[in-house]
Amino acid sequence: MGNFPYQNPKLTIRERVTDLMARMSLEEKVGQVNQHLYGWECYEKKKDGQVILTDTFKEHVKWGKGLGALYGLFRADPWSKVGFETGIAPEDSWKLVNQVQEYVINQSRWKIPALIVEECPHGHQGLGGISYPTNLGRGNSFNTKLTEQSSRLMAKELAAKGVHLALVSTLDLAKDPRWGRTEECFGEDPILAARMSEAVIAGFQGHLISDEEAYLDKTVIEINKQPEQIGVVLKHCIAQGEALGGHNSGTVTIGGREFKDVYFPLLESTRNAIGVMAAYNDVDGVPCHINGQLFQKTLREQIGYQGIVMADGIALDRLEDVFDEKTVSANAALEAGIDLSLWDETYLQITEGVTEKKIKESVLNAACARVLGIKFLLGLFEKPFVEDPQERLTQILAESKANNLRAAEESLTMLKNNGLLPLDRKTEKIAVIGPNANSLYALLGDYSAPQSANMTNLTIYQQIQNVFSESEVVFSEGCEVRNTKNQNPKIEAAVKECQDADVIICVLGGSSARNFDMEFLKNGAVSSKGINMDSGENVDVASLSLGGQQLTLLKTVKKLRKPLVTVLIQGRPYDIQEVQQLSDAVLIGWFPGQAGGTAIARTLIGDNNPSGRLNISYPLNSQQLPVYYYQRAASKKDDYYDQKGAPLHEFGSGLSYTQFSYERLHVHKESDTITISVTVKNVGEFTGKETVLLFVRLLGGRVIQRHKQLKAFDKIELLPDESAEVTFALSDDQFYFTDMDQSYKRADGCRIMVKDLSEEIIFGN
Amino acid sequence: MGNFPYQNPKLTIRERVTDLMARMSLEEKVGQVNQHLYGWECYEKKKDGQVILTDTFKEHVKWGKGLGALYGLFRADPWSKVGFETGIAPEDSWKLVNQVQEYVINQSRWKIPALIVEECPHGHQGLGGISYPTNLGRGNSFNTKLTEQSSRLMAKELAAKGVHLALVSTLDLAKDPRWGRTEECFGEDPILAARMSEAVIAGFQGHLISDEEAYLDKTVIEINKQPEQIGVVLKHCIAQGEALGGHNSGTVTIGGREFKDVYFPLLESTRNAIGVMAAYNDVDGVPCHINGQLFQKTLREQIGYQGIVMADGIALDRLEDVFDEKTVSANAALEAGIDLSLWDETYLQITEGVTEKKIKESVLNAACARVLGIKFLLGLFEKPFVEDPQERLTQILAESKANNLRAAEESLTMLKNNGLLPLDRKTEKIAVIGPNANSLYALLGDYSAPQSANMTNLTIYQQIQNVFSESEVVFSEGCEVRNTKNQNPKIEAAVKECQDADVIICVLGGSSARNFDMEFLKNGAVSSKGINMDSGENVDVASLSLGGQQLTLLKTVKKLRKPLVTVLIQGRPYDIQEVQQLSDAVLIGWFPGQAGGTAIARTLIGDNNPSGRLNISYPLNSQQLPVYYYQRAASKKDDYYDQKGAPLHEFGSGLSYTQFSYERLHVHKESDTITISVTVKNVGEFTGKETVLLFVRLLGGRVIQRHKQLKAFDKIELLPDESAEVTFALSDDQFYFTDMDQSYKRADGCRIMVKDLSEEIIFGN
Repeated sequence: MGNFPYQNPKLTIRERVTDLMARMSLEEKVGQVNQHLYGWECYEKKKDGQVILTDTFKEHVKWGKGLGALYGLFRADPWSKVGFETGIAPEDSWKLVNQVQEYVINQSRWKIPALIVEECPHGHQGLGGISYPTNLGRGNSFNTKLTEQSSRLMAKELAAKGVHLALVSTLDLAKDPRWGRTEECFGEDPILAARMSEAVIAGFQGHLISDEEAYLDKTVIEINKQPEQIGVVLKHCIAQGEALGGHNSGTVTIGGREFKDVYFPLLESTRNAIGVMAAYNDVDGVPCHINGQLFQKTLREQIGYQGIVMADGIALDRLEDVFDEKTVSANAALEAGIDLSLWDETYLQITEGVTEKKIKESVLNAACARVLGIKFLLGLFEKPFVEDPQERLTQILAESKANNLRAAEESLTMLKNNGLLPLDRKTEKIAVIGPNANSLYALLGDYSAPQSANMTNLTIYQQIQNVFSESEVVFSEGCEVRNTKNQNPKIEAAVKECQDADVIICVLGGSSARNFDMEFLKNGAVSSKGINMDSGENVDVASLSLGGQQLTLLKTVKKLRKPLVTVLIQGRPYDIQEVQQLSDAVLIGWFPGQAGGTAIARTLIGDNNPSGRLNISYPLNSQQLPVYYYQRAASKKDDYYDQKGAPLHEFGSGLSYTQFSYERLHVHKESDTITISVTVKNVGEFTGKETVLLFVRLLGGRVIQRHKQLKAFDKIELLPDESAEVTFALSDDQFYFTDMDQSYKRADGCRIMVKDLSEEIIFGN
Repeated sequence: MGNFPYQNPKLTIRERVTDLMARMSLEEKVGQVNQHLYGWECYEKKKDGQVILTDTFKEHVKWGKGLGALYGLFRADPWSKVGFETGIAPEDSWKLVNQVQEYVINQSRWKIPALIVEECPHGHQGLGGISYPTNLGRGNSFNTKLTEQSSRLMAKELAAKGVHLALVSTLDLAKDPRWGRTEECFGEDPILAARMSEAVIAGFQGHLISDEEAYLDKTVIEINKQPEQIGVVLKHCIAQGEALGGHNSGTVTIGGREFKDVYFPLLESTRNAIGVMAAYNDVDGVPCHINGQLFQKTLREQIGYQGIVMADGIALDRLEDVFDEKTVSANAALEAGIDLSLWDETYLQITEGVTEKKIKESVLNAACARVLGIKFLLGLFEKPFVEDPQERLTQILAESKANNLRAAEESLTMLKNNGLLPLDRKTEKIAVIGPNANSLYALLGDYSAPQSANMTNLTIYQQIQNVFSESEVVFSEGCEVRNTKNQNPKIEAAVKECQDADVIICVLGGSSARNFDMEFLKNGAVSSKGINMDSGENVDVASLSLGGQQLTLLKTVKKLRKPLVTVLIQGRPYDIQEVQQLSDAVLIGWFPGQAGGTAIARTLIGDNNPSGRLNISYPLNSQQLPVYYYQRAASKKDDYYDQKGAPLHEFGSGLSYTQFSYERLHVHKESDTITISVTVKNVGEFTGKETVLLFVRLLGGRVIQRHKQLKAFDKIELLPDESAEVTFALSDDQFYFTDMDQSYKRADGCRIMVKDLSEEIIFGN
């Protein structure tokens, strides 16, 4: 350690930041708030395996007199064009980080290390990363403890590679399934997303930031960060799922009351995150990237958020929608509290802007101080380099794989079962057909890395073969996901395979799988149209019908009058009205990840009892949108002339191989807490997990209250005949809403609802 | 006239109201703010033709110690079950009004007459009334002068019958075509609706209320109301077309900025109306019926609105969504400025509420004073009785009929013409087929009265026969609107009729026609599902596909390879992608009214050159909604994976038998006004009308501005080769928008756009 006060670990972080800032030049500060580079362009892997840093990287570090943050050093995917040949193996990652860090520190007068930032939407988007179910699936699990465990394992994996910050989607709500990023959402419900956000923070960060004291007023010694604790940047802040028409990054027209009531609890959940990422969208006209009310007032002043706000990719350049000059954009974004750029040209111009007095240096200073604060918090100054993880990484990956299987199993949601499932273990012949039956990539969702060849046995078909060890299992593709040309031979071939099968498992759905020959925008969103890729970022759809000839395939094999299970692998709800009619059982996998095939096979045979519950209101089709359940209960015409207005399946739906009964709802109010208990009993014949959902309908006020709002949930496991009392404690602040006069006030009372049980309670004062 | 000051026409209305109010009891005041009765239940027509007042009526008048207002005395339709046998002939209407009025005045201590209120959404919904095109069609005309003329004629018709207030839809915007009331909107654009609102006010009221001076500070002598001037109540205030999912009276989530920018100009247009009707919906949670910010602050204080606010039918009872007790609802509504009830039980309880101190008498007094003010303004105290109109009514109806034909002609919009239209006058044989080809009711839209038998020659088929006097014209129904059962024989019969025709005219679309055997809600909205009725209030649809076997019919006759014209009679845009492919020409009639058949026939033969322009962005289907054109220009993903994001036809589209060229756009700024001129030339071979639309894109501010906004329009008629310079003057206040900080400020500049011409202008200070 050096001798400057900022290098002294016994000083508080605030003192160290203040000391360091006072020493820094304008250019050095500007360097710290920039995250301009694509990480994969910063190195080159030579044929002999040697990895060198590129001129692109070196020039930018020189420009910034150091480096604020580096995004995606290990990103591997069709956009980055990084695969196994050109990319960095997990066990070598630490070396490249050290190589980068050494260069950065040497170029920095004050030896300021860079933040290493990676995508981790459902596991690290790097080579050899563990790919978990997408958030839409993990949301179906309603299992926050499991999400915390998975997050801790992801953190360990990333930490071993030398990563400091993980970008994780937790804040988007799936309110319009036309949106291609629906798969990245924990569902439509803000409370579910909030609890998942907190679990993600806890898993990645532990208590790096806590409610008690400002981290700035602590020393790193007090904070005592453990090696596996890394920072998380929660995406996206906020309301991106509200875009008109489900258009990616489209305009959002919701009002102040709607915004506050739906998003405030979700914003509150980010309180202890090290970072949030600003969202592409506007809210009622104001782009999030210049929304000071959101970041400075609400998040920081009101909620007490202490972390940084990162821009989304090239989002600051998109402020051209509003401002003519980049320096003006930069000033507005800095004023709004955006601390760190992402790939844009805008923050590159801050020095110029300050010199020309278009940017106030004070707002730059505030941003720079927050970035530096995070670097101190993460211990970068004490420990800029990462150690060789040696066998530790292998152990972590093995632990993570086991956890991933559990996550995949709990993410599966069964929507129909006429008794066919679980399948007889001794079924003689099983035909597995459909476009998603034998593809590993189909299971992964968007933001996934290339998979090594030895992983291909993880497909659904292969795992069914594996699990049904006494059966003959055959496969036929049947048809492609979307392509409609020349599908008849495939359908015919599938029918042939099914002819003497005892059961048909038809694996349909959508796909977010990108290919290396596709084209991408500057922010990594796909811009070319893959013929069989109908989901993920920038792949919004108008119709929710299943693509291509999938329904034809299903109808054709249905004619064989065999027992028929449909498994849907999807990142959004497709219209499955006909699928349900044709199938004896329907099981949904929401891009269930690398362990998805195993989880599905184990579910089909009954080694896993499905426990997923819908985290969205499952629509009939896109013509009835929106159908999210917590709309205001206005006296309206509910049904359309030509179809129902209600969704096909309610939020919270999902079947088990067993059944649960609910009784003895007790509601008890004491001072500021309402305690609710209910007894749940497994009245079926299988051990099973049940998600207990507690909804509330608020009473009082001069606004129309919502039908109901999820306030708490718990997941329990019960043996046959076992029962358990589930208890929830709701604090006073969970009953607030925005009244007519914009005051945020407590309801006069509420109706507590658990399954079909309900009780009304009026609050005293 | 009596001797009390309030009876003195030389005093100002304010003085008279004050004097009268001081004399009235609580119960008398409550009577004045109630409009509880269904008018058609107030009389009974005996077999001998004698009309008597019912006990229902008399008891209510007794209860109110007078009567505030009486709705729908002449309403005739399936809901009221009033037809020619039971209803009042137009020429006898005056007598019943006098009978009612005499009774009311005799029961009132202060001889206060009642307001007679009638529906007039597109002409009076009474027997023998002239039924104009629905607003959606009249909006396509973009002809405000014509709308003013039509409104004046409606006012004359109603005045001759003794009516004081006409309920007219002008404020709803057609932003989601799933909504069944789309037909009642002047379109999606707030400026078009605002100009139409002003035309309606001018037509009905003349200058009863003007910008200069408060009417309360004038005497009735100064106001000098003419017999044909009646009051108008504009429906609905406001934002009802924004309901989620297009559900009738559904919840609205738009924000304050969206609300202000879109609706403020429309609210301003109501300034001189005698009344507005509150809308069923909430805005961001606050029901309009308790929205004091809207009615008291914005409308009255800020805009200077002087009229009354009427509740919508039973809307005050629907405040049960918010309040437990009707007296509490009543107080909230009175506080918000709702002056007059409609059918509800809520305002019946005001006396009780005041007595129990749940209602402040001051808010009741304010409402009562406003109702009385309107009664003075309309001269009810000087002239409570109406004279026998004698021949005047017949003349008015004749004049109105001629005007109606023009309105119908200008409402028709041609969306495709490969040169087939206009048809050869000497076409030998014309086959007219389709469910809407020979039905008068199909032309009328919702809120229509029964039609007399001698009107049935006004159908499209009959009028084609009439106009193509040298041709053989045959008809076959082809299929029903929605019914799918047993349609094949109808299709086959139609094909047979088309076999040797020279041209086929296929008349498809939807229907708002109610039948007398249907069931209705307490507010008159249909509650039973007519098999062929798919439009109008409470008939929202999820899919915009044409109903029943209509497309099959079209495809089947297409196989005959004959010249094919499709005429669509509809109250919302249906998906016409296939219709356009199959047809040589497509002409849209938006429920064009009694003169619709004639107008269509005259257009097909070329006696009318179609001049309608779309007042909505015509969607491909409901899966891409919303597509209204003035969304904010966010950098979003425009297209869906599976279809375009853009509508099928842009707002303002529409073909003519001639073509127009645009040149020489000049933009000139002088002090507070921008003058824009453009030269339009008829470069085709037919005389034609052109609607010139001036759009603006605002520049500046910290919000994302909208793609464009209509600011002005004009309709001109040009002979072949004739050209005209069209000039617009835009005042400063037309460039305002709500900025990030909620300030309502002028843009820094704008881009002026007329057709493909555009020019940017930066404003000085």
